[in-house]
Amino acid sequence: MNIGIIGCGYWGPNLVRNFNALDDVTIAAVSDSKPERLDYIGRQFPAVGVLTTDADDILRSPNIDAVVIATAVSSHFPLGLEALSNGKHLFMEKPLTATVEQAQQLIELAERKNLRVMVDHTFVYTGAVETIKQFIDSGQLGEIYYFDSVRVNLGLFQHDVNVIWDLAPHDVSIMDYLLGREPRAIAATGVAHFESDIENIAYISTYYDNNLLGHIHVNWLAPVKVRKTLISGSRKMIIYDDMEPSEKVKVYDRGVEVVHDRNQIYDILIQYRTGDMLAPRIDLTEALKKVAREFYDAVHENRPARTDGLAGLRVVRILEAANKSIRDGGRVVRLD
Amino acid sequence: MNIGIIGCGYWGPNLVRNFNALDDVTIAAVSDSKPERLDYIGRQFPAVGVLTTDADDILRSPNIDAVVIATAVSSHFPLGLEALSNGKHLFMEKPLTATVEQAQQLIELAERKNLRVMVDHTFVYTGAVETIKQFIDSGQLGEIYYFDSVRVNLGLFQHDVNVIWDLAPHDVSIMDYLLGREPRAIAATGVAHFESDIENIAYISTYYDNNLLGHIHVNWLAPVKVRKTLISGSRKMIIYDDMEPSEKVKVYDRGVEVVHDRNQIYDILIQYRTGDMLAPRIDLTEALKKVAREFYDAVHENRPARTDGLAGLRVVRILEAANKSIRDGGRVVRLD
Amino acid sequence: MNIGIIGCGYWGPNLVRNFNALDDVTIAAVSDSKPERLDYIGRQFPAVGVLTTDADDILRSPNIDAVVIATAVSSHFPLGLEALSNGKHLFMEKPLTATVEQAQQLIELAERKNLRVMVDHTFVYTGAVETIKQFIDSGQLGEIYYFDSVRVNLGLFQHDVNVIWDLAPHDVSIMDYLLGREPRAIAATGVAHFESDIENIAYISTYYDNNLLGHIHVNWLAPVKVRKTLISGSRKMIIYDDMEPSEKVKVYDRGVEVVHDRNQIYDILIQYRTGDMLAPRIDLTEALKKVAREFYDAVHENRPARTDGLAGLRVVRILEAANKSIRDGGRVVRLD
Amino acid sequence: MNIGIIGCGYWGPNLVRNFNALDDVTIAAVSDSKPERLDYIGRQFPAVGVLTTDADDILRSPNIDAVVIATAVSSHFPLGLEALSNGKHLFMEKPLTATVEQAQQLIELAERKNLRVMVDHTFVYTGAVETIKQFIDSGQLGEIYYFDSVRVNLGLFQHDVNVIWDLAPHDVSIMDYLLGREPRAIAATGVAHFESDIENIAYISTYYDNNLLGHIHVNWLAPVKVRKTLISGSRKMIIYDDMEPSEKVKVYDRGVEVVHDRNQIYDILIQYRTGDMLAPRIDLTEALKKVAREFYDAVHENRPARTDGLAGLRVVRILEAANKSIRDGGRVVRLD
Repeated sequence: MNIGIIGCGYWGPNLVRNFNALDDVTIAAVSDSKPERLDYIGRQFPAVGVLTTDADDILRSPNIDAVVIATAVSSHFPLGLEALSNGKHLFMEKPLTATVEQAQQLIELAERKNLRVMVDHTFVYTGAVETIKQFIDSGQLGEIYYFDSVRVNLGLFQHDVNVIWDLAPHDVSIMDYLLGREPRAIAATGVAHFESDIENIAYISTYYDNNLLGHIHVNWLAPVKVRKTLISGSRKMIIYDDMEPSEKVKVYDRGVEVVHDRNQIYDILIQYRTGDMLAPRIDLTEALKKVAREFYDAVHENRPARTDGLAGLRVVRILEAANKSIRDGGRVVRLD
Repeated sequence: MNIGIIGCGYWGPNLVRNFNALDDVTIAAVSDSKPERLDYIGRQFPAVGVLTTDADDILRSPNIDAVVIATAVSSHFPLGLEALSNGKHLFMEKPLTATVEQAQQLIELAERKNLRVMVDHTFVYTGAVETIKQFIDSGQLGEIYYFDSVRVNLGLFQHDVNVIWDLAPHDVSIMDYLLGREPRAIAATGVAHFESDIENIAYISTYYDNNLLGHIHVNWLAPVKVRKTLISGSRKMIIYDDMEPSEKVKVYDRGVEVVHDRNQIYDILIQYRTGDMLAPRIDLTEALKKVAREFYDAVHENRPARTDGLAGLRVVRILEAANKSIRDGGRVVRLD
Repeated sequence: MNIGIIGCGYWGPNLVRNFNALDDVTIAAVSDSKPERLDYIGRQFPAVGVLTTDADDILRSPNIDAVVIATAVSSHFPLGLEALSNGKHLFMEKPLTATVEQAQQLIELAERKNLRVMVDHTFVYTGAVETIKQFIDSGQLGEIYYFDSVRVNLGLFQHDVNVIWDLAPHDVSIMDYLLGREPRAIAATGVAHFESDIENIAYISTYYDNNLLGHIHVNWLAPVKVRKTLISGSRKMIIYDDMEPSEKVKVYDRGVEVVHDRNQIYDILIQYRTGDMLAPRIDLTEALKKVAREFYDAVHENRPARTDGLAGLRVVRILEAANKSIRDGGRVVRLD
Repeated sequence: MNIGIIGCGYWGPNLVRNFNALDDVTIAAVSDSKPERLDYIGRQFPAVGVLTTDADDILRSPNIDAVVIATAVSSHFPLGLEALSNGKHLFMEKPLTATVEQAQQLIELAERKNLRVMVDHTFVYTGAVETIKQFIDSGQLGEIYYFDSVRVNLGLFQHDVNVIWDLAPHDVSIMDYLLGREPRAIAATGVAHFESDIENIAYISTYYDNNLLGHIHVNWLAPVKVRKTLISGSRKMIIYDDMEPSEKVKVYDRGVEVVHDRNQIYDILIQYRTGDMLAPRIDLTEALKKVAREFYDAVHENRPARTDGLAGLRVVRILEAANKSIRDGGRVVRLD
């Protein structure tokens, strides 16, 4: 499989490195608008065939089978559209597109032309998330009550997208994968402290059927990095702390206790927890390695990838609704 | 000062102990509906004068100057009203009342009769919160951007009140004290997983002028206790983690950096923080000791307590609006 | 059972409280040389029969069955000797005595008179240590390779004993209980930074048969409290951190891996661990409650207590040898 | 400056990368006995001139100015000797040599030929250690009382050297740099649980003048990585935890309090600490980048490097004495 990679900014070199490491994949070309980025790629990966500042050299090349796009969100749709139109499989950096409509167009086009669309929801391929998925799917957690995620980065501001489009794709894609269902409504709160319409802190509530509640806090403005998720079920609860070096996933061996006797409450209040905690061994393989492999396999086996275009669409749908809710002053946006 | 204490459940004995330790205060009587609680008090505090199952023995006693009420929320208003009507100063467990209207009635009655009303917003008297207050009031944090608080207890369910009335008074009273202003609108999300109308998880957004945002997550259903607050300003940021034994308050010596150059962002993204962090020494005196002293002083000096009836009213106003928002499906409730 | 308690300084009131809570025990008398301590006891525990500044009122009282001694170490032996001579069971604060010879005399006297001697090795009765004991005794850890304990308090200096006699009884008694065997040699290092012969930091190595190594670091001079123990076996390893509120005991599901291939080492070096970790539920019952109960039961059932005089002797033997080694410049002291 | 690098196992590629990044340095050749390691270097660093399995191609090359050696400890001396004999500056992986005598020979030879010898004591160049050095040298810590270091890796066993030669060079070189003086005696304890004479756990005590005590615990056999150092002075104390992502260095604003009143002790015992704690901003530049730069500068400026041959000798002297002490059953080995 010959691939071309468009965009070599922050994340692009990681994609080049991981696709380059696959035996069955050849990186035929890499493009970036900045020549110094191409120089960097050339030095680091001498095996890369063509280095070009013109993405069209990739999009129109007859000997490229698949295109990997790692550019700014606003260009995802036009680049993706051209790639698919030219008969190339598509690997898109998250989020898939800037709107639901764009995502739907890409998916439909790919379907018509029998091409693959995959989105780089990297966290879905981490050992931590895969381990949690097993606990949920095996029924060990019981009925899921809520999913609460906090993702905080360090006071960095961008100019093209707000904190929801920047950070929430991680949490939303993890939530989508783990819960395996779609919310029926979204409400969000956000504040832009510095530039109008570029929110730097936001809270997103996602309402599912059966009282399942999702909540995501994304934040550019905090003194320390936080990446922490609570998932609570009727049988067990999970804390997933991605900043923990060695105990990323903790599974607490207890469900809910409905206490009816107030005196009993006094006794329990002084306790920290009532069950065992297990921190399972987590596979520390670089997630992006598995991502690259999954794209190759999906194309090769002619099957949807784990994070296919539909997964990308579901994530964009939630992000779009969250932004709409903020524009409407926190109004609940129904998705059904 | 002779005081009577009504209610000796979970918190009552702590009040007895701390008022008992004040030289200028005599606990003339203690009441509780359960005789075994009175037996317990009698054994632990032999100096307490009268032990009675009838609260009226306290409310009507001619030689009692002040009444301390630590009963279920629903009884706060009738008991408080009778205490004030009988000319007694009033110390009320938090929250002050179950409705804004009740709080206003108590405050007005106290004003007419020149009596003190104080609410037991205990956390406001902790060394940690007092230290943070000094950082804010001295201007060291700069302009405040947001206040984010998470308070999680351990899967305990109560039948009379939901998690907002149970846990949020702590966060709301801390936020009220530290920010020193009132929100203009509230929106909240909550879910009752077990009993209808008894929410066990809730998220409250509070909107202030000038883009200041407050957010509170209260939760009965989690595997570990969490009590963590982020306060972010233009000059410094604070993390207050009440579960930390020795470093409850961390002050980060950095404000916001608006980064315009994308390459610079890549450099910074790998860093954890860019300034020093100070964990100031925290006074570990039991907060309730200071609470009891403040009540005595306020009565003695005929001045409002730090957490007077108006502070109690402001907290109840936010709690009431949060519950109203949940009942209305997350609708924003304006307070102005 | 009627008991008398001698010494009500720092720890004494905890003993009074816990023995007082036992239904089958009556505290007939409490003595302390300082009247204000007796006043304090009288107020807190009105049920205590006699309060006296003369320990002999207890030691010679005909209606006292057992004596609890919580005085300075130097007085343990004379007081214990008199108690046993007068036919009273003996409960001694740790360490049992200041010398091995004294401990042996007390044990022999008790044996001759068929009386119980118990030492307050409190930590042996904590839920954490009891849990670890179960893991070891069930064989789950496999062969034990080493026991490493660090106990640091906060720069407090005492004048009567050094840091070994002050802090190490905790670690040594835990080690004695968990390992269930006696070392054949001891070596220790210690420094007295402030007063000659009052070491404030010390390291003790204990050599057992079969290459089992014990090591204890005790320290008065550090900025934070540390109480951390590593126990490593061929099948599992344990970290016991007593300062952790909720995860005091962590059991790591891996033993030793002897890696022969150097390339394999490079792969493993980047990993943190290779097995699961279990933090079992720990019984949080106050250990001293179980200690008091054990003393009563041992007397009542005429059997040795879990931490009987022999356990006390074994601990004193190690402490004495450690001090001897320090006096001899770190020389190894043989115990066999 | 043309350099040749001998040995490309675990650490070698890091040296290649960092020397390669220096503008004034050209990597003329790299050697390793394994061809696949050379292939790897060739792919990653196409700019490297010669790749060879014969170290002599480097040692005898007329156009190489300096040799970097990253091979097994046993080969350090013969390779270093040949490099210096051939007039090349020498950069040696830690530890400098396997014996004191070897280190002395290399230093003398280099002196005679006016060549530089530098040892890769990497940690000495970390932002954390440099920050601590400033606190010590500025007198802010006051008189230093002890240096206590724990370094634990994950149950990996090597066959050529024991845990002292493998891990302790880090701690000893940090201690040497920070304290700036040499111990007068060493005592050590160690156990080889698996292969005779290959100790996998060891404790080293280093005795300095004026009651300054050093203590190092190195360990291959533990469930988690630990890298923690306590440095205690009369004015301040420092905790350096290298596994902490964001707060590696904590400076506690308190010295020792000698408490004479026993009642005061009871009050203090319940406190965790009594001063402020500062976690200064740490420079996170890769230490090895600074190491490579220092070697170039030392050669270029014809001056000793920060970690010159004498520093390497001082470290080897302590390691050798520690091993000797273990062979002698823990006997104290004098260095003066």
